[in-house]
Amino acid sequence: MLFQVVMDVRIPHDVPAEKVELLRQAERERAQELQRQGIWRHLWRHAGRYANTSIFDVESPQALHDILSTLPLFPFMDIGVTPLCRHPSSIHGDDR
Amino acid sequence: MLFQVVMDVRIPHDVPAEKVELLRQAERERAQELQRQGIWRHLWRHAGRYANTSIFDVESPQALHDILSTLPLFPFMDIGVTPLCRHPSSIHGDDR
Amino acid sequence: MLFQVVMDVRIPHDVPAEKVELLRQAERERAQELQRQGIWRHLWRHAGRYANTSIFDVESPQALHDILSTLPLFPFMDIGVTPLCRHPSSIHGDDR
Amino acid sequence: MLFQVVMDVRIPHDVPAEKVELLRQAERERAQELQRQGIWRHLWRHAGRYANTSIFDVESPQALHDILSTLPLFPFMDIGVTPLCRHPSSIHGDDR
Amino acid sequence: MLFQVVMDVRIPHDVPAEKVELLRQAERERAQELQRQGIWRHLWRHAGRYANTSIFDVESPQALHDILSTLPLFPFMDIGVTPLCRHPSSIHGDDR
Amino acid sequence: MLFQVVMDVRIPHDVPAEKVELLRQAERERAQELQRQGIWRHLWRHAGRYANTSIFDVESPQALHDILSTLPLFPFMDIGVTPLCRHPSSIHGDDR
Amino acid sequence: MLFQVVMDVRIPHDVPAEKVELLRQAERERAQELQRQGIWRHLWRHAGRYANTSIFDVESPQALHDILSTLPLFPFMDIGVTPLCRHPSSIHGDDR
Amino acid sequence: MLFQVVMDVRIPHDVPAEKVELLRQAERERAQELQRQGIWRHLWRHAGRYANTSIFDVESPQALHDILSTLPLFPFMDIGVTPLCRHPSSIHGDDR
Amino acid sequence: MLFQVVMDVRIPHDVPAEKVELLRQAERERAQELQRQGIWRHLWRHAGRYANTSIFDVESPQALHDILSTLPLFPFMDIGVTPLCRHPSSIHGDDR
Amino acid sequence: MLFQVVMDVRIPHDVPAEKVELLRQAERERAQELQRQGIWRHLWRHAGRYANTSIFDVESPQALHDILSTLPLFPFMDIGVTPLCRHPSSIHGDDR
Repeated sequence: MLFQVVMDVRIPHDVPAEKVELLRQAERERAQELQRQGIWRHLWRHAGRYANTSIFDVESPQALHDILSTLPLFPFMDIGVTPLCRHPSSIHGDDR
Repeated sequence: MLFQVVMDVRIPHDVPAEKVELLRQAERERAQELQRQGIWRHLWRHAGRYANTSIFDVESPQALHDILSTLPLFPFMDIGVTPLCRHPSSIHGDDR
Repeated sequence: MLFQVVMDVRIPHDVPAEKVELLRQAERERAQELQRQGIWRHLWRHAGRYANTSIFDVESPQALHDILSTLPLFPFMDIGVTPLCRHPSSIHGDDR
Repeated sequence: MLFQVVMDVRIPHDVPAEKVELLRQAERERAQELQRQGIWRHLWRHAGRYANTSIFDVESPQALHDILSTLPLFPFMDIGVTPLCRHPSSIHGDDR
Repeated sequence: MLFQVVMDVRIPHDVPAEKVELLRQAERERAQELQRQGIWRHLWRHAGRYANTSIFDVESPQALHDILSTLPLFPFMDIGVTPLCRHPSSIHGDDR
Repeated sequence: MLFQVVMDVRIPHDVPAEKVELLRQAERERAQELQRQGIWRHLWRHAGRYANTSIFDVESPQALHDILSTLPLFPFMDIGVTPLCRHPSSIHGDDR
Repeated sequence: MLFQVVMDVRIPHDVPAEKVELLRQAERERAQELQRQGIWRHLWRHAGRYANTSIFDVESPQALHDILSTLPLFPFMDIGVTPLCRHPSSIHGDDR
Repeated sequence: MLFQVVMDVRIPHDVPAEKVELLRQAERERAQELQRQGIWRHLWRHAGRYANTSIFDVESPQALHDILSTLPLFPFMDIGVTPLCRHPSSIHGDDR
Repeated sequence: MLFQVVMDVRIPHDVPAEKVELLRQAERERAQELQRQGIWRHLWRHAGRYANTSIFDVESPQALHDILSTLPLFPFMDIGVTPLCRHPSSIHGDDR
Repeated sequence: MLFQVVMDVRIPHDVPAEKVELLRQAERERAQELQRQGIWRHLWRHAGRYANTSIFDVESPQALHDILSTLPLFPFMDIGVTPLCRHPSSIHGDDR
């Protein structure tokens, strides 16, 4: 099932730069792993902001939570979750 | 280029039911036409609400406006527009 | 899976009283039917307000939408949906 | 009587990790003790967020305050309290 | 137990003046009856606004709901409810 | 004249515990002194939150400011002030 | 004593134009009468909006309420009230 | 001097279509007249919404108010006004 | 021309007390200088809050910015600016 | 294509003054370079606030993001982005 997840990243200025760099690198690797697994189905940057809209395809809200809460940058994110379902006007097979 | 569009539909209760039905039918037809043209790329219902998240692939903000402002239900929608761009961690070719 | 649904009911004063009464009666019957089926698992009134917090146990966001969008009072509700999952500190077997 | 309590946990990044771990462990033990006593009747995680919805069954607002204000993570929580009462359409005996 | 109730009254301009007058008169009578019973313990107008802050002393959230939801002006009120309890610094015996 | 004052207390976690304790003790003593003087007429805790609703009986907004701005915890409070007046439906002599 | 009052006027489009005109004329006359009496001490329009900031000099919150609640346009106003007091840095004798 | 003006247009559905058309036509003519006079210096549509951002070059807030409050669609607009001034980093002569 | 300026002062608790005292003293001196020059025309404290409403009489938005942005406490203020103009119902010569 | 960008700058007080000065200087140089290239088309200060409204003329949302996210002060900005398009009533050739 699909969930829309909007992530706003806010890293306080006194987190050491090296730590931030490590977190970002780990975040990128994890994000790509989840994309390869077909779980993190879409990932778009909000132009001009340190934020993204993502579409996750998971088995349950529990699976979504396990994934999001272990993201390396999770402690620095404001996260909004919206459960999605098929729109009766959609003709795209994979917008289920 | 991609835009995320969130549409909240609010139809006052004193709009005649037949008019609402006609508007919805026209909206559905227009939505499917735009999907077939590859412009309305994704369309998901927000579960439990008369709202959707859509991804449009258009040539310009002008094209986006021309499309949205002529939707049959446009006068009854609250619309939020977020310009998207490719996320550096995305591995999906079509999340451009 | 579980979803928390908060419903605020706002009925404009110019909806005829008989229609409101019919809608409320139909809403009650539907609510009790869904409770008997184990779908509408909890239903609490917000003290002093025409609002409730409900817990739904459904198979998918799609099932949740189908249920909520066909409630008789749906056109007069502001609805907020929060997907829930098991809390690691919970000891209640049915808080899954 | 029942109260809905929504807890958002926000722990500043400069709280030492060991202190956070101790607080979380103490929080978990206290939460389970209150559940065993029938006071913390339901506890659900918000999927994807460090937040929960809880239902407390207490004798009075005073009892609720005494319980919440002594939770180990209380200083790091934003808390919203909504008094609940039985919904006339509820058929569940324990949704009192 | 005590609840703080803030009521904002918003009467649409197309409600007939006589109906408004009747509702207000009924509201006043009911408010004074509840005050005489010791239930509606305090009632203050917000200066310059059609709003009030009230303190109710009731047996339960259920009792509060039964009282508020049957007020004649209830359909035209936005209501906020805050459960109160004794403040450890209070020296007033009746601020229980 | 009466003013409703809602105080939300937010003490950053890096204020030393001893300082917080001293401030709270001083706050309590000052609060009780003002209650004995009949100025801080009511003081109720918001159940489950580090917040209160208070009713002050002062000679002027100036007197209110002098009192609130010298409270020991004032620098850590978000304060909302609402001027009150007698409600035409009140029957309580001291809800003036 | 002084109160800052911000008035936002919102007149629904289906109020008859003649009625609006009569209300506005009555409002103007009442406003000027209160200014001549020294009660409505300042009156400024918000540039570009149907709104104003006013400073009232009254004996009490009660007097303020009696004045505002009988303004001809009161039923169509959103009103915000802020009690003011002398600023320690003010050198203006009448900013009391 | 320059003011940023954001206009959101909200026309209730029960305003007759012919009236709306006349208002829009009058609005367009007035807007173009003010542009020719150099007063309405910039006018951009918000893509996908019935809203615009405008830059006005006027002699005073009073002049701005006289212009905005006489726009044909003024009664149906939510308007936000932000006074602008030259940015120290600007190199554009006309961004004064 | 006149501008309403609302200033909310928020000084983090870890700014050294001596620095705060120096800033406040400098702020007071600057405020009084601007009042003597007729620029800071009114200055009122919000009762019970570290905030004020001020009326500035300046030649332009640019002049307003130069004044506000060089106030000693400017880095610790949340500032709201509203351009004002003469109200057609005002009879006060200096409410221009 | 044009985007309206509103930037609110919030620099915590514990960022060293020299670092702030270097960031501001680098920001100014970058802003002027982008203006000379015709990309940062307009730049206006919000009077009285550390904020600006800017109009960017870029090839795509991606280009906008690349520019904004590399501004020296980007980590200290709250940024709002609104895609713009030509207004049908505009007569200015460059308000495209």
